[in-house]
Amino acid sequence: VDQDHIMKAYDQELARLDQLIAEMGGLAESQLSDAVEAMLRRDSELARKVAERDRRIDALERDVDALTMRVLALRQPMAEDLRTVIAALKTASDLERIGDYTRNIANRTLALAQLRPIGGAAHTIARMGVLVQGMIKNVLDAYVGRDAALADDVRLRDAEVDQLHTSLFRELLTYMMEDPRHITTCTHLLFIAKNLERIGDHVTNVAEHVHFMVCGEPAAPDRPKDDRSSLTVVESLPPDREEAPKP
Amino acid sequence: VDQDHIMKAYDQELARLDQLIAEMGGLAESQLSDAVEAMLRRDSELARKVAERDRRIDALERDVDALTMRVLALRQPMAEDLRTVIAALKTASDLERIGDYTRNIANRTLALAQLRPIGGAAHTIARMGVLVQGMIKNVLDAYVGRDAALADDVRLRDAEVDQLHTSLFRELLTYMMEDPRHITTCTHLLFIAKNLERIGDHVTNVAEHVHFMVCGEPAAPDRPKDDRSSLTVVESLPPDREEAPKP
Repeated sequence: VDQDHIMKAYDQELARLDQLIAEMGGLAESQLSDAVEAMLRRDSELARKVAERDRRIDALERDVDALTMRVLALRQPMAEDLRTVIAALKTASDLERIGDYTRNIANRTLALAQLRPIGGAAHTIARMGVLVQGMIKNVLDAYVGRDAALADDVRLRDAEVDQLHTSLFRELLTYMMEDPRHITTCTHLLFIAKNLERIGDHVTNVAEHVHFMVCGEPAAPDRPKDDRSSLTVVESLPPDREEAPKP
Repeated sequence: VDQDHIMKAYDQELARLDQLIAEMGGLAESQLSDAVEAMLRRDSELARKVAERDRRIDALERDVDALTMRVLALRQPMAEDLRTVIAALKTASDLERIGDYTRNIANRTLALAQLRPIGGAAHTIARMGVLVQGMIKNVLDAYVGRDAALADDVRLRDAEVDQLHTSLFRELLTYMMEDPRHITTCTHLLFIAKNLERIGDHVTNVAEHVHFMVCGEPAAPDRPKDDRSSLTVVESLPPDREEAPKP
């Protein structure tokens, strides 16, 4: 009976780890959705709420850490259970980072609200946000459902985010050059786009943790990386716009 | 004798984990040093080498992961040993990210080499690089020496990096506004500065892992965060430079 009791408590702890990850992931997803909406609507109130609520994700990570240490120390898990515990530990760390990037988007929204609005780029960024949000949702489904195929699929979709980011990088640079009054706005938008690209990277990490948890071996190391923004050079003015030197 | 043999193997595994972390950290430090030098000297050859060598840090992280799983499964470590293993796992993940940011600095150096050089900001960034590099060195000393006080000290120094980053952010924005031909260059410099700020965050994480490993409880949760760049608004032109509207 005692042995039964221990096993039951152990199973409950593993189930609780899953719940905590699902809760963190759900929060990360809704926070990102709110952050992107706040950016689009120039809604400082909502942005402030998003920044504030990030503490809840941080607190959940500490809960996962504490429970992980407890399970490792008391239950000495083996094989699949051990992989589950390690996957939870690593996933919590990635979700916490996703929360940080989302809070940063919210903070930049506060700066953007003080600047004159510009049109198109914010909408492209919002599209990128929807894409990344869908990846978070799917990778959590893969996590909870122990679905390695779905995790691998999410991992591949990060290339789309990278491509969108690279084209946004060019677009925003060009926009700054055409009208230097937009420089501060565009810089914050550049960093928001970069935050989304990084969130995509962390979702990819989670997908890799799921793969490892389910399959017992690391996902293939070379995933496609298509973010070329760091290599991008945009000339300062197109030749037909080059002004004659002032006297 | 058999029991002795097992203990010896176990000790060797724990020592090997420390060695791997020290090796990763040493690489991360020298990579960062080379990346900053490549940026200052506009040295594409060196930048390419830095980007290439990042694979070695990635491979070391996989070694740490594999050894960690092995120790957890076979030795079922308790108390301090368990904390050591978890600290190694988490530290390897942070060092891998530091390697990624450093590779990104190297990639941006390749783009910068194609653009006209600008003076002062690159030197300020190099100063920031030296600061962060010193933090990596010290946090590794703290790790290997199990020195929580030194780790806590490194953690506090991240505020300096954040402040330097915030002032660089303003400086680079102003520079872009004064001369839009510098927009692409300054944007890459902005992201390089941001990469250094993020590396500082990851060093801070490592400092927290060391604290936990040595003291058995988490470091105080609220560390000072002084990166205000995401909230920064720089007006497009100082009033005395505002041009009369063109006819």
